[in-house]
Parts: sequence; structure tokens; C-alpha cells
Amino acid sequence: MTQSLSRRHFLAAGAGAASVWIPRPVKGYTAAEMREQAVNDRLEVGVSKWDLDTPCLCVDLDRLEANLDRMQTTVRRNGIASRPHAKTHKCPAIAQLQLAGGSVGICTAKISEAEVMSEYGIADILMTTVNVTPPKIRRAMQLRQRGAGFTQAVDTAANARDLSAAATEAGVVADIVVDIDPGGHRTGITAGAPALELAQLVDTLPGLRLRGLLCYDGGAQHVTGFADRRRRALGSLEAAAETAVQMTRAGLDTGIFSGGGTGTYNIDHETSGLTDVQVGSYVFMDAQYLGIGGAENPEVYTDFETALTVLTTVLNAQYAGRATTDAGAKANTINRPWPIVAGETGMTYTAGSDEFGTIRYEADASRVYAVGDKLELIVSHCDPVVNLYDQIYGVRGETVEVVWPIAARGKSI
Amino acid sequence: MTQSLSRRHFLAAGAGAASVWIPRPVKGYTAAEMREQAVNDRLEVGVSKWDLDTPCLCVDLDRLEANLDRMQTTVRRNGIASRPHAKTHKCPAIAQLQLAGGSVGICTAKISEAEVMSEYGIADILMTTVNVTPPKIRRAMQLRQRGAGFTQAVDTAANARDLSAAATEAGVVADIVVDIDPGGHRTGITAGAPALELAQLVDTLPGLRLRGLLCYDGGAQHVTGFADRRRRALGSLEAAAETAVQMTRAGLDTGIFSGGGTGTYNIDHETSGLTDVQVGSYVFMDAQYLGIGGAENPEVYTDFETALTVLTTVLNAQYAGRATTDAGAKANTINRPWPIVAGETGMTYTAGSDEFGTIRYEADASRVYAVGDKLELIVSHCDPVVNLYDQIYGVRGETVEVVWPIAARGKSI
Repeated sequence: MTQSLSRRHFLAAGAGAASVWIPRPVKGYTAAEMREQAVNDRLEVGVSKWDLDTPCLCVDLDRLEANLDRMQTTVRRNGIASRPHAKTHKCPAIAQLQLAGGSVGICTAKISEAEVMSEYGIADILMTTVNVTPPKIRRAMQLRQRGAGFTQAVDTAANARDLSAAATEAGVVADIVVDIDPGGHRTGITAGAPALELAQLVDTLPGLRLRGLLCYDGGAQHVTGFADRRRRALGSLEAAAETAVQMTRAGLDTGIFSGGGTGTYNIDHETSGLTDVQVGSYVFMDAQYLGIGGAENPEVYTDFETALTVLTTVLNAQYAGRATTDAGAKANTINRPWPIVAGETGMTYTAGSDEFGTIRYEADASRVYAVGDKLELIVSHCDPVVNLYDQIYGVRGETVEVVWPIAARGKSI
Repeated sequence: MTQSLSRRHFLAAGAGAASVWIPRPVKGYTAAEMREQAVNDRLEVGVSKWDLDTPCLCVDLDRLEANLDRMQTTVRRNGIASRPHAKTHKCPAIAQLQLAGGSVGICTAKISEAEVMSEYGIADILMTTVNVTPPKIRRAMQLRQRGAGFTQAVDTAANARDLSAAATEAGVVADIVVDIDPGGHRTGITAGAPALELAQLVDTLPGLRLRGLLCYDGGAQHVTGFADRRRRALGSLEAAAETAVQMTRAGLDTGIFSGGGTGTYNIDHETSGLTDVQVGSYVFMDAQYLGIGGAENPEVYTDFETALTVLTTVLNAQYAGRATTDAGAKANTINRPWPIVAGETGMTYTAGSDEFGTIRYEADASRVYAVGDKLELIVSHCDPVVNLYDQIYGVRGETVEVVWPIAARGKSI
């Protein structure tokens, strides 16, 4: 994308009148509550974020747009594409923004996430995990029967045969990428002969269509220091890149060669044949990624801006040196580093108890809170935190501009 | 309760035809999906738990009933009551079982949880957290306007005055317990003169009715070793007990003196004047509590049975010494100790990545899994894990007997 997303463009994509964007029922409400909720959502649009009740999840729209822009500009310059991972945001509105900005498709980790994204009109979905249980295989075929652009990962011959049989029975062709293990042995098949053989099998099975390959090294994403990260990322994709060459020589489709993530988005294009990066966290950034350092700033990963925050209220301020808030583990997870209090210095925040957060002041704390005061936390690890909330407030400056349902929240099946 | 809950009693309470038990819409589904979901729920009743798709959350009904029975028998023998904390299960059906078994009421940590419990017909709710924001104070008064038996904690004079003004404006009387700090300075007011003064203020404010006091020492619950835990628990409640005596002398109501939890349920009655324990985790038990040891078994806390499990499926088994499952941090949280593979030995489970779990086999592993195999995990820390799921499968032996909505899932506001 050659220009920043304008405010108007953003609203049109994210909260406009097109039918696909009509807010779906927020989870867990009765019909009456949904009507009330719809009223509340409208009432919340236009208010100051400081008037929202807490704990709640906010995204700074200027920062989100800057992150989308930065990613798209970079991958385009490097001759690859982005295929953002919806497991991070679980939010169809943000997926649609990514596609509007030039992404070639959306990734999901779960079949249930793919179903939600498809239901909201996302037309090109790559599920990066294998479907091995009969219900999930059935649901994958139903997605194809409903006309979804849906591709899924395969890493064993047995699973390929199961999918082919199910596709044939369902009267569809299932699109497949072979998932290659980058060396961590978590998912995928071994690069080289095993992967090539599997790709050839997929190519011959009647219910399947080979679309290419996938190799994601999750462990590379958080390696501290750009040079070390680059070495690790390029090294772990090397065998997959050789496999891609072998597949091409064997006449197999390598139109998709997907890998990488937010930590390696400006490295992965150096892997020959790689077509796109499955970047997730870049939309929000988080405290975990801040610490890995970047190509420009070795201390802090400043490529993207921290856009995701949890708002919380102080519940108890009557003891020296500390305060208690309403955002504990159920609002923040217990991922480390702990959340960062935005805009303040000389205080730490821990979310170690389920219901309460704890602020501890140092001698030079920039301020001391009273009961009822609100503060904003930079999220530690965005993916599992988003998964705790049913909605996200899109904030411009200090004003709530839009309320988006996190429609795939809790879709872990 | 003098007898175990029979299967019939249990079903009548949990899944019968009374209007309060009609399943509410499961969060996040459209109307069409809800109809489909209702069909699926019915279809799932009667199937083997091993036929459920994964990851999913299960409770062993025999063990749940044994835990309810054990708690009720013990507190009754000790001359106190149980007032179970719904923050653990967030499930109205389980709350109703607790009340049917003799509990005097239900606790909640959040106003939104109280609203859900009230909506499902729970008539006596104690919110153990203060309400300090205007929207929450408004909602607390609306609960009273709708006739709910609702009592809330207060720990500052300013908050007491705010609540009184709101109650007067709403035309209701708000029931109040004074929350006393057990010494951790997380929540509550200091015992002795400050707490007494606050209780006297509450007693005089026109919109409030004083019901008693509350003192919960969360830190005492997980102290390892029964003797040390007893010393800590009794010590931290001592000042609150003295305050209760002062309140009684001053003619103030101490009809509620609530404290304690699963780790101290058979200790807290030794605190003079204490009326009930806010026990939560005992219904499910979890791996965290197993390690604290009990009065009967110093090594393992065997007072209650581990009833809560996550079912997961093996996705990758092609690398020696390990397997990858579909239940990572989004299905298990990252609380420690890690989940325990039920019924197996010689293997460890980690849920360190968002989407995937990792099994590592030791030399003497009791078995090795193939792709598609299912296994059952004993949950690490029940409260935040329950908060990840929209429903819980009640299983008798290996058969699904009931599907309960976790209606307060995600209610963190």
C-alpha cells in the first residue's frame, strides 16, 4: 500500500454500512441484552476512553494504521506479501483492514476461527494447523462446500488420505499446503525427501489440490538481537527453501511458500522462493516484542507501535507504596514481562492474582493513584489477552471511534 | 448435607426442566447457530467424552459431587457455612448445586458475574470486591431494584457515601459488608479502629444496611504444609475477629463474617465469630492445590478430587520423544505447575505456546501417542482456565451427561 489508511477509509472498512460489517451479537447476551448492548455500543462511540468501564481492551487506531502501513510498505518493497494471522486479533474487522491494505489472505490457527472469518466475508483463508479429528475434517469440507477460499496444512500421508476421502465424499476439492518442520519438531514434516514425497502424494490424491508449502519457526520470532534473529530465521528455513526448489523441479505447485512472523518480517524475504509472511502481533505490538530489539534500534523493537492496551481502575489506594486495580490475570494473562503502565515512570504492574492487579511505586514514581483513577496498560502478549475479551474499543486520540466484536474469541476448537 | 447428591438430584438441579435451567444462548453464535448449537448439545449428551472434539473442558460429575459433599459435611460439622465463590466456575448450574447442597449463598468477584448469577435465579449473592466506578455503582443498585439479594464489599468512607447516595437516588437499600485487610494490603481497610469507624458510618448512612464483615487472606490458601497454613490463616484473621467483637459490642450487625477458602476450609472455623468460608477451587480442585498438602496427607492435598480436565488431541507424533497437541496456552493458560496428563506416568505436558501443547516422554512413559489420539489434562489453576471456555461437559464415567453454559465466562467488568 503506497498511502496511509485514511480515517475515512478505515471507518468504511471497519465500521461502515456494508452488510458484512453489521455487528454480530456479542457473545453471551440474551436478545434483550443484545439490544441493550447495541445501544450501549452506540453510546460508547464518541465518548472518551476514560469514560469506559474497566477492565476493557482498547486499540489506538492511529497506531494500528501506522503498523498496517509499515508492514505493507516493507513487504512490498521486499517483493513478498503479507498473509496476516488472525489468531492474534480474532477480529474480522481488523482482518478486513489488512486485506484492504494489500494482504493476500488471512491465516487462522483453528477451524473455528476460519469459520468465523469466512462468515464475516473473508474470502482467502489459510489454516496453518492440521485438521485431524473427524469433526474438524467435516467442518473443513463444509467450508469448501459453502464456497470459502480455504487452504489447510497437512504433515502426514495418513492425514492427506483422510482429507482426500472426505473431500471426495463431500464433492469438493480441498486446497492443501505441506507444513514443513523448521527444526523445532513441534509441527510439520521433515524437509527434503519426506516433505517432497508428501507433496507428491497430495498432488495425486483425487480430493486434494496442492497449493504449496508452509514453514513457520515460532522460536525465531522472539530471538533477541537482529543479527542473531536473522541467522536463526534464515537457517531454519533453508531446508524448506531447498524442498521448494525440489517441488518446483518435480512440477509441483509452490505458489504459496509461507513463513515468518512479526519478529522476522524484514528478514524472511531473503529466503529464496518465500512468498509471504504470516505476521500477527505487528498490528498491536506488545511488551514481549518490545524487548527483542530491531534492525534500527538494537535495544527496543521500534518497528511497530504499541497499539493495544487494557484500561483498568484503581480499587484500593490506602496502603503506602502500592495500589490495587481491577485488572488481574483474567484481564491480562500472566505472560511476562508484566504489562507496562502507559505514560508513567517509576512504577511496576503485576497481574499475578486472578482478579486484581498490583501497582508498586518506586521512589521516583511519576504519580500516585487514588481510588477510581483509571490507567492504561501496554499488553504483555497480545494473542492470549485478546482471547479474553468479547469486544475491542477502537480509540482515536482519546475518543472511542468504533466498537468491534472479537468474533473468534474463545474459538480454540 | 447429610447424603451424597444422587444422580437424579444432580440432574434435576443442573439440567432439569425448571425455567431457570433452560440453557441460555452460548456466547458468540447467531440465532441460526444457537439453534444448531442446541441440537449439538443434545447430540453430545449421551456420547462418550472421547468423542468430543477438542480442546474442551470437562468436569467429572462423581468427583464434583464428592467435593460438594466433603465441603458441606466438614463445614457443617465445624459449625460454619459455605458461601462458595462463583469466580471459580462462573457457571449458574454449579452455583445452584452448591445452594441445593446447603451453601448459604454465592460469592462473586465482579458485578457482571453477580448480574449473570441473579439472572439465572441465584437469590443470595455477596460481591467480595468494591464497586467504585459510576457504571458499576449504578448496576449494583439496579440489581437491588430488580429484587436481588445482593451484598457488596466496602473499604473506604468515600465509597460508602457514594453507595448510600446512589441507593437513595435509586430508592433501594444497599446491603454492605466491611472488607478488612488481612495484612496483605491488597484490598480492605485496616482492622480495629479504622474498620470499626467505617462500619459505624455504614450503619448510619441512609441508603446502606450493614450486614457484617469480610476478611479474605488469599495468600494463606496456598501455603504448603497444614501446620504452617493453619498458623498463617488464623494469624491473619485475628485482628478481623477482634474487630468483629468490637462491632458486636457497638451494636453493629456481624451476621456475616466471611473469610477463608479451599486451602483453609477446615481451619477457618477456629477463628471466633467467623460464619462462612468463600471456598472456590474445591469444586474442581487443580494441580496448584494438589501440592499444598493436607491435614491427612502431608504430601498431597487429597481432601478434594481433581474433577476438572481439558481434553486434547495429538496433532503431531512424528518426532522421537515428544508429541504436539491442540491445547496450548489459550486452552490451559500458562499457570504452573503445568497440567498433568491424567492416568499416565513418565511424561510431562507444557502449554507454553499459544496454540499447541507439548508432551515429552521419559524413558518409562506409560504410553506413546499417535496422531488423533485424545488425552485428558488435569487443569493447573481452575479459575482462569474455566474463564477460557463457553461451556463445560458434565461427564459420568466416560459418558457426557449434561452440557452447562459457563454463563459468566469473560465477565471481568
